[in-house]
Order: sequence, then C-alpha cells, then structure tokens
Amino acid sequence: MDFFETVEKRRSIRKFTEKSIPPEVVHRALDAAILAPNSSNVQTWDFYWVKSPEKKSKLIEACLSQAAARTAAELIVVVADPSLWRRSQAGLIAYTEQVNAPKLVKDYYKKLIPITYSYGWFNSLGLIKKILYNCVGLFRPTPRSPATMRDLQEVASKSAALAAQNFVLAMTAQGFQTCMMEGFDACRVSRLLGLKSPARPVMVIGMGQELPDGKGTWGGRYRIDKNLVVHEI
Amino acid sequence: MDFFETVEKRRSIRKFTEKSIPPEVVHRALDAAILAPNSSNVQTWDFYWVKSPEKKSKLIEACLSQAAARTAAELIVVVADPSLWRRSQAGLIAYTEQVNAPKLVKDYYKKLIPITYSYGWFNSLGLIKKILYNCVGLFRPTPRSPATMRDLQEVASKSAALAAQNFVLAMTAQGFQTCMMEGFDACRVSRLLGLKSPARPVMVIGMGQELPDGKGTWGGRYRIDKNLVVHEI
Repeated sequence: MDFFETVEKRRSIRKFTEKSIPPEVVHRALDAAILAPNSSNVQTWDFYWVKSPEKKSKLIEACLSQAAARTAAELIVVVADPSLWRRSQAGLIAYTEQVNAPKLVKDYYKKLIPITYSYGWFNSLGLIKKILYNCVGLFRPTPRSPATMRDLQEVASKSAALAAQNFVLAMTAQGFQTCMMEGFDACRVSRLLGLKSPARPVMVIGMGQELPDGKGTWGGRYRIDKNLVVHEI
Repeated sequence: MDFFETVEKRRSIRKFTEKSIPPEVVHRALDAAILAPNSSNVQTWDFYWVKSPEKKSKLIEACLSQAAARTAAELIVVVADPSLWRRSQAGLIAYTEQVNAPKLVKDYYKKLIPITYSYGWFNSLGLIKKILYNCVGLFRPTPRSPATMRDLQEVASKSAALAAQNFVLAMTAQGFQTCMMEGFDACRVSRLLGLKSPARPVMVIGMGQELPDGKGTWGGRYRIDKNLVVHEI
C-alpha cells in the first residue's frame, strides 16, 4: 500500500471482528517496527506477543477489559527498558569495527554509552549528572537529559513509541487495524510479563480486522486546525 | 512510495547536500504527522519550523552544532506540552456532539480529561492521585499513570514521538531524509521558542537530501537479532 494511503487509512479501532490474523502479517509488522530510528541505536525495546489464552485473559483484564483489548485477535505489549543497552552493546561495537566506523562512533559505544546509561544506586549518579549538566550548561550548550533513571526510561519509551508507530502503520498496510492503548494497569502487566525496573510496559497494541461500516470507531477522525499546531518562526 | 519500501529506505542521515526542500514537501509531512494516533486525541503537540536564519543558527548551536543540524536544509522542533489539552477540548466536545458520539465519550472530554490532566500546585494533586491509584490498584486493575506533571509530560512526549515517526517516514516517501536528534540543550531550545513548563522540546528533526554513496551515514544499518526482541508468550 502507498505510504500516504496507509497514513490516511490507519485509525484506532475500538472493536474488531472475529477474524484471525495470519502470524506472518504480525511478523512483517514487527520487522517494520524494529527498523524505526531509536536513541543511539541501542534498541532498548521488547515486544511481548501474548498468545497463551490464560495470559491473554489476564492482559485483557489489566487493560480494564476495554473492547479494543477484549475483541483483539492479537495483543502485543511494547516494553521500554533502558537497561537493555547492555544487550546491544557488544553487537554494536563489533559492527562499528566491521564497517570501520569513525573512531568517535566506536568510542561512543565503548565508553560514552555505559556512562550515559548509568544512574547509580538510588539515582545517586543520575542526580550528580543532572547538577553537572546544568552547571556546564550555564556556559555552553549541554544536553540536560538523560541523567536520572526516569530520564532514561523516558528516552526508551520515546524510542519504543517510534517502533510502535511503524508497527501500527504496517498492520494497516496489510489490511488490518490496531488500537494503541495506554489505559492499562502497568503494575499488573509488569507482573504478568515478569518485568523488573527500570523496564516498563509503555503501550499495549490490540489488532484485528475492523468492523464494517465504521462500527469500530465512535465517529470520523477529528484534528484541530493545523495552523494552531504548526508554527513557522 | 510503497509503505514497506519507505520503512526500508528511511535512515537517520548525519550529513545532507545543499539542496533545498520545496515547502510543500515539508507541509505534506506535517499533514501526515498530525494524523498519528495520540493519547486521548488531545493533540498535545506543537511543531516549530525554524526558518529565520538567526533563530536557526541558535538552534544549530543548541544541537551542539552536530552535522545533522548544521547541514540540514530545514529544522523542526517537536514540542510536547500536556497543558495543550485545553486548546483541543472545546473542539473535541463540539465534534462528539456533531457526530453524536456515545455519552461515555462525550463525558470523557467534558469531565474526565480535565481531571486526568490536572496535577495541582507543586504536583500536589498529582501525588494524591498517584497514592489513590495505587490504593485502588490493590483491589482491581487501575491505570497508575498519568498522575504527576512528569507522567503527563511523558504521555505527551510519547504521542509527539508517534507524530514524529509519521513525519520522518513521509519525508522519505517524498525522496528526502531526516535525522531525529535528542542530543540538544533543552533549556536553550525552550528559551529560543519561548516555551513554558510543562512544555518541553522532545526532538529536533533535521532534514534534507541525503549525500550520495552512503556518505551521509557512517555505515549500514545494524539491528540486533529479532529473536532477542520479540517474545511470544
């Protein structure tokens, strides 16, 4: 499907038909998801495709049993976990060697990433970094974040959102629809998936075939005036 | 361009040619951006297209003068601001009336959104909500977030990321490339744009024509094994 047609067609669907989704469709969307840009390319995301009926029913409950979860043919939890930089680091270092990347890039993955992603016991290092960044920032342009665990969690959650957007578009491009849900009990979802801090579920995506005649949504698509949102300065 | 071809072709480009971008290309990408799904459809995002040479050079400086900013034909700052629910609310209420949405949806925009997006002086209400959610959560599935200002900022930043992803794909689909930057001085960018808390710049997007022969990146595309990232449970 054409890119702009895909963007136009994608809607958040609250109610799906009973049609199942061929697994290869979901896999193709996952392939698209992991091609999304992400912070420093450390790929601090995980995708839990919840298939076991028992776990699925617990997940639906944690999503407050909303129709978009209840009627979904498949459910995927998008998890953001800044500590996953450790999973990618060795591969990234090997890859920068293999393609003979500039020294700056090699050092970035060897030395700078471990410093950037450390926040110490009880955020001690994170708070020191925060103070330091703001002091240096008085004199020259300095990124003030990420410093604390929460900052890093947010960076990971932003990257996970980029992947999630690729995912939902890829489902639309293949004739299915999705609903991104944020209204869920994150504690219960974390327990279900066995997540440990700093990992957090940042989105649950329900997917399936859209009900005909627009019955899967409560109305058309509403956006405020573009001129309120875009500022040319 | 085909959707999957667009996803494959999109790369984060660090160095652009001197070719300018026709404004209608950027506008079409902005149109795609604001069609992204977003939390409760309250559209708490702003896009600052920095055109004035003076402001642009200050923005480049705030982006640590990195090549992706310095060589970009155009620069857009993506801002997430949870307080912007107020800008959308009247239109959303009018729209739900116009299409005669279910009462639940109408009430959601009239009553629930103002409660959800309030955090009180010095986060007082936010902290009370956090305690309350966690107490209720002991007994039944309850969303634990957003409660505090930071939670709301993160929700807005996640939604802004979804729009940003549509934007970068739309630029690729039209033959240009982009670089999402998070390494910038958020204080200096906020000052430049005149932003006030809780608004925050969450991403700066540089865009232009890719240098030929892969000279705009330091190497190919590296992703860790999909089996590490996708968990079927």
